Amino acid sequence: MATLGDIGLAAVFNIGSAFVFLLAFAILRLQPFNDRVYFPKWYLKGLRSSPTHGGAFVKKFVNLDFRSYIKFLNWMPDALKMPEEELIDHAGLDSAVYLRIYLMGLKIFVPIAILSWTVLVPVNWTNSTLVTAAKLANITASDIDKLSISNIPLGSQRFWAHIVMAYAFTFWTCYVLLKEYATVADMRFHFLQTERRRPDQYSVLVRNVPPDPDESVSELVEHFFLVNHPDNYLTSQVVYNANKLASLVEKKKQMQNWLDYYQLKFSRNSTNKPLMKTGFLGLWGKKVDAIDHYKSEIENVSKEIAAEREKVTCDPKSIMPAAFVSFKTRWAAAVCAQTQQSRNPTLWLTDWAPEPRDVYWPNLAIPYVSLTLRRLIMGVAFFFLTFFFMIPITIVQSLASIEGLEKVLSFLKPLIEVKVIKAFIAGVLPGLALKLFLIFLPTILMIMSKFEGFISLSSLMRRSAARYYVFNLVNTFLCSVIVGSALQQLKSFINQSPSQIPKTIGMAIPMRATFFITYIMVDGWAGIAGEILRLKPLIIYHLKNFFLVKTEKDREEAMDPGSLEFNTGEPQIQLYFLLGLVYATVTPVLLPFILVFFALAYVVYRHQVINVYNQEYESAAAYWPDVHGRIITALVISQVLMMGLLATKHAAQSTPFLIALPILTIYFHSFCKGRYEPAFIRYPLEEAMMKDTLERARDQNLNLKSYLQNAYLHPVFKGEDDDEDEEIDGIKWETESELVPTKRFSQRNTPVPSKIGSSPPPSQHGTNRISNL
Amino acid sequence: MATLGDIGLAAVFNIGSAFVFLLAFAILRLQPFNDRVYFPKWYLKGLRSSPTHGGAFVKKFVNLDFRSYIKFLNWMPDALKMPEEELIDHAGLDSAVYLRIYLMGLKIFVPIAILSWTVLVPVNWTNSTLVTAAKLANITASDIDKLSISNIPLGSQRFWAHIVMAYAFTFWTCYVLLKEYATVADMRFHFLQTERRRPDQYSVLVRNVPPDPDESVSELVEHFFLVNHPDNYLTSQVVYNANKLASLVEKKKQMQNWLDYYQLKFSRNSTNKPLMKTGFLGLWGKKVDAIDHYKSEIENVSKEIAAEREKVTCDPKSIMPAAFVSFKTRWAAAVCAQTQQSRNPTLWLTDWAPEPRDVYWPNLAIPYVSLTLRRLIMGVAFFFLTFFFMIPITIVQSLASIEGLEKVLSFLKPLIEVKVIKAFIAGVLPGLALKLFLIFLPTILMIMSKFEGFISLSSLMRRSAARYYVFNLVNTFLCSVIVGSALQQLKSFINQSPSQIPKTIGMAIPMRATFFITYIMVDGWAGIAGEILRLKPLIIYHLKNFFLVKTEKDREEAMDPGSLEFNTGEPQIQLYFLLGLVYATVTPVLLPFILVFFALAYVVYRHQVINVYNQEYESAAAYWPDVHGRIITALVISQVLMMGLLATKHAAQSTPFLIALPILTIYFHSFCKGRYEPAFIRYPLEEAMMKDTLERARDQNLNLKSYLQNAYLHPVFKGEDDDEDEEIDGIKWETESELVPTKRFSQRNTPVPSKIGSSPPPSQHGTNRISNL
Repeated sequence: MATLGDIGLAAVFNIGSAFVFLLAFAILRLQPFNDRVYFPKWYLKGLRSSPTHGGAFVKKFVNLDFRSYIKFLNWMPDALKMPEEELIDHAGLDSAVYLRIYLMGLKIFVPIAILSWTVLVPVNWTNSTLVTAAKLANITASDIDKLSISNIPLGSQRFWAHIVMAYAFTFWTCYVLLKEYATVADMRFHFLQTERRRPDQYSVLVRNVPPDPDESVSELVEHFFLVNHPDNYLTSQVVYNANKLASLVEKKKQMQNWLDYYQLKFSRNSTNKPLMKTGFLGLWGKKVDAIDHYKSEIENVSKEIAAEREKVTCDPKSIMPAAFVSFKTRWAAAVCAQTQQSRNPTLWLTDWAPEPRDVYWPNLAIPYVSLTLRRLIMGVAFFFLTFFFMIPITIVQSLASIEGLEKVLSFLKPLIEVKVIKAFIAGVLPGLALKLFLIFLPTILMIMSKFEGFISLSSLMRRSAARYYVFNLVNTFLCSVIVGSALQQLKSFINQSPSQIPKTIGMAIPMRATFFITYIMVDGWAGIAGEILRLKPLIIYHLKNFFLVKTEKDREEAMDPGSLEFNTGEPQIQLYFLLGLVYATVTPVLLPFILVFFALAYVVYRHQVINVYNQEYESAAAYWPDVHGRIITALVISQVLMMGLLATKHAAQSTPFLIALPILTIYFHSFCKGRYEPAFIRYPLEEAMMKDTLERARDQNLNLKSYLQNAYLHPVFKGEDDDEDEEIDGIKWETESELVPTKRFSQRNTPVPSKIGSSPPPSQHGTNRISNL
Repeated sequence: MATLGDIGLAAVFNIGSAFVFLLAFAILRLQPFNDRVYFPKWYLKGLRSSPTHGGAFVKKFVNLDFRSYIKFLNWMPDALKMPEEELIDHAGLDSAVYLRIYLMGLKIFVPIAILSWTVLVPVNWTNSTLVTAAKLANITASDIDKLSISNIPLGSQRFWAHIVMAYAFTFWTCYVLLKEYATVADMRFHFLQTERRRPDQYSVLVRNVPPDPDESVSELVEHFFLVNHPDNYLTSQVVYNANKLASLVEKKKQMQNWLDYYQLKFSRNSTNKPLMKTGFLGLWGKKVDAIDHYKSEIENVSKEIAAEREKVTCDPKSIMPAAFVSFKTRWAAAVCAQTQQSRNPTLWLTDWAPEPRDVYWPNLAIPYVSLTLRRLIMGVAFFFLTFFFMIPITIVQSLASIEGLEKVLSFLKPLIEVKVIKAFIAGVLPGLALKLFLIFLPTILMIMSKFEGFISLSSLMRRSAARYYVFNLVNTFLCSVIVGSALQQLKSFINQSPSQIPKTIGMAIPMRATFFITYIMVDGWAGIAGEILRLKPLIIYHLKNFFLVKTEKDREEAMDPGSLEFNTGEPQIQLYFLLGLVYATVTPVLLPFILVFFALAYVVYRHQVINVYNQEYESAAAYWPDVHGRIITALVISQVLMMGLLATKHAAQSTPFLIALPILTIYFHSFCKGRYEPAFIRYPLEEAMMKDTLERARDQNLNLKSYLQNAYLHPVFKGEDDDEDEEIDGIKWETESELVPTKRFSQRNTPVPSKIGSSPPPSQHGTNRISNL
């Protein structure tokens, strides 16, 4: 086991790299030519524009004001300044609540860390089990182990301290969880209540419309809802199968990019016309004039698009058995979404419509029977993915070894024998296979979720996150604790008794503390610091900027603000919750490392949310029940492992006290589920009615029908993408401006306003609207 | 292990006792003075009246027509004659669907029995493993074991026959289950659709009305629903805490019974006035004139009742935070029941109101937090009840032994030493303790369900049935298979590996076949035949008839038709499903015994439902998902045990094929759950709307408000009990008559119309109503 010195070395190394990342970030972000990489959110909001006007040429690209380099960490307080209400206003509820997860980490673990250091560390330290054992075995006990539960002799009465602490930690965690659940539920209701009028408030997604020989889908939907919701039905929109059309539009866009590239090249160097080869990847084939080639190609694709568009709108086969149905009031939409329409519960399935941006169009037409079957298949596939993923990787690794390569590709033998290449293959390739798999894992899980038929991006994200969490739990946590592959574990678990499993894992837990401390420093400290540097978007932006950008609008498109990746980010946080809760009673030394992670991540992500990320959709924190549930899982795991550990320590008389803990925790979970989960699934009629009444008083002659007419059109039908973007922006924009009726100026909180360029005054929509109330 | 001869002996004995019961029933039911015991249903429906008029005196009590004794089994075809539609009309959907469970048993097991006898019996029989083994051990192998899977040598290829059969049985069972689920769901919808107007169709039960300092509960409810369902709200009724009042009324009724008894006694023998003692149980105290005493007591109680009634209606504290809210349309009620009303999902809880007869009044005021807590407590209590119930019984048994009694009650020592008493104590008492516990078990489970806070009798029944099933599974099935108490099993299961448990049980399964065959004959054959005799109601009726009955109305009340006891009956059937499915592949010999049970039980209960039972409530077969789920459980258990058994038979290569079975079965279950379960929980808006439209067309100037005004009054407020009964009868009566628009005469199907007395013509309400349509 590692000594304090080893840990210290690793800490120095990781703190060093984190420091390098932060320093690089501090320098890069001050350069005006990186402005769009590090502050895209403000550009998208129209509160910041390119530093093109005024100043010397150099100043446009490099920041020469040396004073600004001195305070290179001052983005941190800036990131913390913006109040939460304004953050919701600025970046949406999803992001604001996501940051609360990190904050909750601090809320849970700061008191736990203090308590365990004041109580458990002295209790553990003042024993001499390890020293004695070490003397006997003639080795030195590490200091970290002296602070852990391993230092307590078998059957000691001191274990009562750990049991009492386990109770204290559980109660504190549950208390924080309860408070947070209540707060987030309130925030969600407040958000929904103050939100501007949006199509999804009035709409319901109907799926599995039964086929009818006499009526078209749209007629059928209209008739059904006119009959069953006669006083409330307003209008409906059928869903077109426009997947092919969408891919054509995408193709056209790419060709346009190439055209732009060649035109730019030509304009810079007008002497020789750019040529290109028509073959695969431009590597062979006939040489043609690139500009003419792409122009004619674009023309062809445009014709194809027109034909496909015609076909989709006219052919009844391209109408899917699904529709967005809109009602006259929010109350009626809430009613329709929450009730069963037809005798056959698999037909006329109604769900609260996702907001238009959030819809995942390709999945809207999957029939019910296929849905359950898909879920079964994916369940089995995920089981194999989790427990057997090492098998193909081992095969790849064996192939990627030197002997394997020589066997398969014998003609490469002379090359492989070269010393440098040999070293590369032996040292890097096997690891690369695993690394590549892990990089592609979120994509694989996302494809699996798509296959399962979820209809909104937010639910796809949630499902992927759940799967990623389980994968992490098995393959990162459990496999690191009991060194061995998931498959080996599965085998041994099937053949072990249920009471033996927690003992096996529990016994291994204290011994792996140093490993996890290193893991936290690499993944949590340096990784998070690397996140803020945005190396990949930085490079891509500058490449695009150089090769493609002609107009300001192009530059806008070249920005890649990205967004919070819930499907990978949240499971990562959950791993820290798990580690913290498991080690709180066992090896309190680990807790400060986790605290640093939560604090650093909170600041970094708050900065990113404010300045960089641009959320693609808004689910109003619908993911919170998942977050809550996983922390409860971590709590139960920690309790069971504690039970197993103490059983191996001959402290069996304590078992009854520990058995009560998971039972109480699960009961607490079921209570929370009943009390708060409906807030994230259903829209209470009371709220809907209140909002309807307010709106009726405010806006008496509103033409709702025309407002909702085309709200749920497939994106490709909305003319060009630009129009769509504008519309969405319009919607979001007004939403935000109505949220907080305050005169506070938004740019006051823009962290480190760019030296060059000025921000426009805050939204006028908002203030006008508020004064109209 | 028992030989065929032993089984034959047991069969003869049990068939004999079943025969005796049936013969006794055949004789007793033909006696006119037993008519009200064996045909109470017809009296309650008013289609049969007491045989008082005409004929000789003797004929009134004893049937002297000897021809009727010859065909003593002809009630059987009579019981089967009534078509199902008319049965629903006659006894309600609950009873009709309950009978379908037995029928489903036949549907599932007849083909399975045929298949396993034609395939598995020859496969098993043509081996000589047991013969060889027996020769070696010098014992004789029993014939039954030769027919079972035990006769196949280890690692034989013949096990594939069993695997294929396991698949066939699973598919067949699932097919029947699917068909039945669809049929029952359709029957339920048809029943609800054709049902007469009933208060519960328009009403919703609201619980957890939040306290309000300014408004009373009834005002608050009215305001809330006027705001949130403005177009649909009609009226509401608050719930009074009338539990004390109800017990007073009950007390008065008992005293009235005693008064009647003494008055009858006096009228028969008017020479000496009946006297009684006022002390405990009339054993000591002052002697008083009994009639005067009870008259004055009744007067006192009446006063108390009046005072309490006054208090309940005026004191705001006796109003519970719950109300029955009625709407103008069924559509609106369905909407309200299926939606969430308030931001806080634990307030304003709305549920589809149970029908007035079905409401369990004392539980209406339990708050949400308390509900989850109660559920937790009962969960833990049930766990202990299931696994530790042997502990108190063992203590009681040790006390009830001779040494125990002598120690505790030493003064009884001389008495105990008497030989007869000693034998009695040694032989009977220990068994008696267990028997008493098992008799009281359903009551204990019912009390537990009541404590959990269910609000309708039907849901109480369902919950008790679920618990009783689990108890049976653990303590009857598992404990019989692996001889040992539940606690011992629990211990060994915790310490065994998950793959070992099915092996242990699976291995024991074939060896216990003969035990279960005997069990089926005792519990299933003789027990069911005993049910039809109705010994207890027979005795009680005659006692009451002799001591209490003065008028025809009294006689009506003395009848105890009873009802189908879902909470004990259904778990019993499930045990047979479990045995059948488990032994179908292992010991096919068991199947015919199960077939006889299902057939006999179907006929007997069909007879009872037609002639005897009077259901207390109608839940429209809401219990079917439970029945379905438990058969699926039995199927999965049988598959896992088969897997375990084959693993011990060195047929490990077959495991992958068997693992797929439970996965497919569970998938099938989840499919059925999604497809059919909602039919038993929610009321689809399409159906509600259809019924509303029909009614509007039919009955244009209906005063719904006055109809619903007092529908959900606590029974004690409806004047005397009689009024309530009449009202309920009225409702049910018309319901039934509207169901089947046919001119068929009901009494055509009255089995064996009593020789004396005539039945009135069929309901005139019904025919009038139908002709009005």
